[in-house]
Amino acid sequence: MNDPKTDAARPSEAHPYRIPPQSGTGFRLSKGDILVVIDPLGEQVSDLMAFAADDQQEWLSSGRTFDYNETIYLTSGHKLYSNRSRVMLTLLRDDVGRHDFLLTPCSTETFELLYPPGTAEGHPSCFGNLVQAFAPYGIQPDQIPTTLNIFMNVLVDEKGKVNIGPPISRAGQRLELRAEMDLIVGLTACSAEGSNNGTFKPIDYFIIPAGTRAEEG
Amino acid sequence: MNDPKTDAARPSEAHPYRIPPQSGTGFRLSKGDILVVIDPLGEQVSDLMAFAADDQQEWLSSGRTFDYNETIYLTSGHKLYSNRSRVMLTLLRDDVGRHDFLLTPCSTETFELLYPPGTAEGHPSCFGNLVQAFAPYGIQPDQIPTTLNIFMNVLVDEKGKVNIGPPISRAGQRLELRAEMDLIVGLTACSAEGSNNGTFKPIDYFIIPAGTRAEEG
Repeated sequence: MNDPKTDAARPSEAHPYRIPPQSGTGFRLSKGDILVVIDPLGEQVSDLMAFAADDQQEWLSSGRTFDYNETIYLTSGHKLYSNRSRVMLTLLRDDVGRHDFLLTPCSTETFELLYPPGTAEGHPSCFGNLVQAFAPYGIQPDQIPTTLNIFMNVLVDEKGKVNIGPPISRAGQRLELRAEMDLIVGLTACSAEGSNNGTFKPIDYFIIPAGTRAEEG
Repeated sequence: MNDPKTDAARPSEAHPYRIPPQSGTGFRLSKGDILVVIDPLGEQVSDLMAFAADDQQEWLSSGRTFDYNETIYLTSGHKLYSNRSRVMLTLLRDDVGRHDFLLTPCSTETFELLYPPGTAEGHPSCFGNLVQAFAPYGIQPDQIPTTLNIFMNVLVDEKGKVNIGPPISRAGQRLELRAEMDLIVGLTACSAEGSNNGTFKPIDYFIIPAGTRAEEG
């Protein structure tokens, strides 16, 4: 696990952190930091979860976020809310425009219930990777709710049916998220074949510290 | 708060419990019990939340439920899953066919953010009523996630926009839910003007004990 705050050679736009395929990581964001999540090869989902750093009973809530933004499709300008109705993150630059906040991170049970027999055993999962990412912070598996599934292409038709298509993200495209409070974040390179057009690729990220981007003041 | 299990004159189809307008209640369901939720006057939403009775870290999960049913519109035959991917409830008879599992229970912040100024202060809310309903069971406010909003008419258009329409439930219509494990349930008569076509009405419910309905064996 990396901690950007204590890393002597801080990763940057030119040299981001790389999350290997089917794995995950956890780190802190300070209020005002901008997290840049990049799909380096294209068509790769990254699940994100966040808890308030000063009280881990406050967590990123899909339901509050849908309620207050009045949309299920979130993009630049939308604010992501906690279960306590406080803004945790603001979406800034969004090169892709299609992310999911309906579905839970893939887990052993996802592969048991939705994939061909035999898929589940030993299969890495975003849920398992988030459990590992959050463990050093004392966050328990049962605290992990619906994640923001960056670059995940989930469509809901007029009858409510949920269809997962290949991500529309292309190599090098990004989503930027500004932390609006101090956060503990878990981030993965998604492990589910069906969400990533059949292949497993890495996810890159770096953090622009609060106050260092020109237009942020 | 009622506890049907210890009530000498058990409420029934002819004499259900009544949840007064803008209030809520909490109770236990045993595995196999059927909870019957009735909209006695029509156009009234009822928020439902459930926790496993033997381990309150297991909770009803909208995300797992959307994932495994592959739909956001749940009706007869659909199973409602916990965060641990176990079936908590099965939907049986559904007279209405439109319920919501996207949005969080209305709260003080809902009225602050989405309603005209001055609405929030002193306004009852489903969140507040669920907090009270669950308090005797030791369930904390931060544990309450997205609820199953029975009879709530939330439509998602092709651009993802969330629109709340008047409930399509008519007087006397019902939703039946069978408990698939022992549960602690919170149930409300929703307090939000915008979800109930501008008026506040009661919700009726009763419980058919496990094994007592003929077709259930």
